[in-house]
Amino acid sequence: MTNLFRSVIALVAVLMVTAAVAAETDPLPSWNDGPTKKSIVDFVTKVTEPESGDYVSPQDRIATFDNDGTLWIEQPMYVQLAFALDRVKQLAPEHPEWKDTQPFKAALEGDMKTLAASGEKGILELVMATHAGMSPAEFQTIVGDWLATAKDERFERGYTHLVYQPMLELLAYLRDNGFTTYIVSGGGIEFVRNFSEPVYGIPPAQVVGSSIKTKYELVDGEPTLIRLPEVNFIDDKDGKPIGINQHIGQRPLAAFGNSDGDFEMLDWTTSGDGPRFGLIVHHTDAEREYAYDRDSTFGRLDKALDAAPDKGWVVVNMKNDWKKIFPPLN
Amino acid sequence: MTNLFRSVIALVAVLMVTAAVAAETDPLPSWNDGPTKKSIVDFVTKVTEPESGDYVSPQDRIATFDNDGTLWIEQPMYVQLAFALDRVKQLAPEHPEWKDTQPFKAALEGDMKTLAASGEKGILELVMATHAGMSPAEFQTIVGDWLATAKDERFERGYTHLVYQPMLELLAYLRDNGFTTYIVSGGGIEFVRNFSEPVYGIPPAQVVGSSIKTKYELVDGEPTLIRLPEVNFIDDKDGKPIGINQHIGQRPLAAFGNSDGDFEMLDWTTSGDGPRFGLIVHHTDAEREYAYDRDSTFGRLDKALDAAPDKGWVVVNMKNDWKKIFPPLN
Repeated sequence: MTNLFRSVIALVAVLMVTAAVAAETDPLPSWNDGPTKKSIVDFVTKVTEPESGDYVSPQDRIATFDNDGTLWIEQPMYVQLAFALDRVKQLAPEHPEWKDTQPFKAALEGDMKTLAASGEKGILELVMATHAGMSPAEFQTIVGDWLATAKDERFERGYTHLVYQPMLELLAYLRDNGFTTYIVSGGGIEFVRNFSEPVYGIPPAQVVGSSIKTKYELVDGEPTLIRLPEVNFIDDKDGKPIGINQHIGQRPLAAFGNSDGDFEMLDWTTSGDGPRFGLIVHHTDAEREYAYDRDSTFGRLDKALDAAPDKGWVVVNMKNDWKKIFPPLN
Repeated sequence: MTNLFRSVIALVAVLMVTAAVAAETDPLPSWNDGPTKKSIVDFVTKVTEPESGDYVSPQDRIATFDNDGTLWIEQPMYVQLAFALDRVKQLAPEHPEWKDTQPFKAALEGDMKTLAASGEKGILELVMATHAGMSPAEFQTIVGDWLATAKDERFERGYTHLVYQPMLELLAYLRDNGFTTYIVSGGGIEFVRNFSEPVYGIPPAQVVGSSIKTKYELVDGEPTLIRLPEVNFIDDKDGKPIGINQHIGQRPLAAFGNSDGDFEMLDWTTSGDGPRFGLIVHHTDAEREYAYDRDSTFGRLDKALDAAPDKGWVVVNMKNDWKKIFPPLN
């Protein structure tokens, strides 16, 4: 072997090791390199470097994430609505009157058009009829059983496998940098708590969401909580900053959403003093997931998309910014 | 020196070192040795030892603490009521009508008898008039300024120095053993959050409490939260398990209280499967603090004291179990 040849071999080896190390240490491997990924890394770097001038102590590194459309899929309908529809079918034998009563009739017939026309009021009726009347623990069992078996038709996967791999990496990256990560969802707090820890690494206490009322009573002398068919709190739009203030007690340092329902959370977050970060996931990938924004029934993104440039919110172009959409199936 | 003399010296040295090490490693130095302290240590030991058969994983080691009378003083009145009375005096010039309107008249005149007679309704009126109409951040400033200057007359100390040293040690001991510690207070969530982190090591998100409603609005284009004079949630009695379920999403492993307002939290906690722990601080020390239970206006302990033996709740006899009451002043 000539010396030159040896040197080339050594150089190649060094380059290969360097590349391997770089790949290994990239905390966001499913994000394409570019301005979006750079803005995330730059923000995290500056708030965690003691000498940056923008340093933020760990106790103030609060990051809040919307769930539907931000961490997991929300088309062709919210996952929790799919759950409610399946529950209606399951409970229908006990409710013969549903065959002739809207919105239950539409739910049983899979008539999504009539269901959509019933609006928020109709959806709320379905939720009350299917989510109340049991203890939180019993509800957890029902949700867990459903999530273990229900499948999305298009992707032929369970819903907890329809979470966004790049966002899972982002959650882990933030936590590795001393952030506390919260879900702040318009969906039901107890529904999301069912899978937030195993799927997102977010424990139940770090889930903020919509809720129905609960009552406490003794059942055969046993202290018992019962879920009531009555709205307690709607964690959407202005409800998101209100819910965050109530639950977390601090304005977030960073907020992540995908729809107009996240506008107030993003606006309140990024209006705080010092460095702040707001990000919107824009669904632009009809091939690998869905493409929707201003005209969507679920996850409409209109006002927040218009406001993003002025407000300094980063807009993720799913098609261009994400290498992968979903995690590999085990 | 004789060999015997040398041996005695060596033995004494060994004993002294052993005693010093024991003192240093006692996690609860302000608790007298005895069955109460032993019950705490035994519980923590068994749920943290993987081989004990009663092992509980860290994510389920949730400990909830009442605040008034459990972590700090609640006589001669709740600290937050003292705050409200001072605020009434401060705001009185803007409210000339208060001079002739109850319960404000009684508050201004320091007429505690009339005030007590106005009951919960009267107290609530005082709270609404003094706790609402500002942002949570402004409220934090008002509470912080007050706590920095207000003093308890009998002990001539600020209220954050009237916390119980043995309970501070207990909080730290539990956290050192993988527990997450929460406050679950009948007092105002935003009031307690003002000092929970520096005083108890409990961050704002781990405070559950009573609350008033908040609205979100744009003030000169700035997203702003405003505290409203309207009850949102009363975190007392059955409100405690309901608040815990809403906020933490898990049944606690251990609960600590001192009054009948904690009964439902204790009962729900210790009714759970597997090892559980309930503890009541019984105020028995008129000399160093106060002695009160069944007939007290603040922190009445009656039903829970009767139930304790049957329920297996540990009752702390403050006079006998605690070496010290308050921490040393710096």
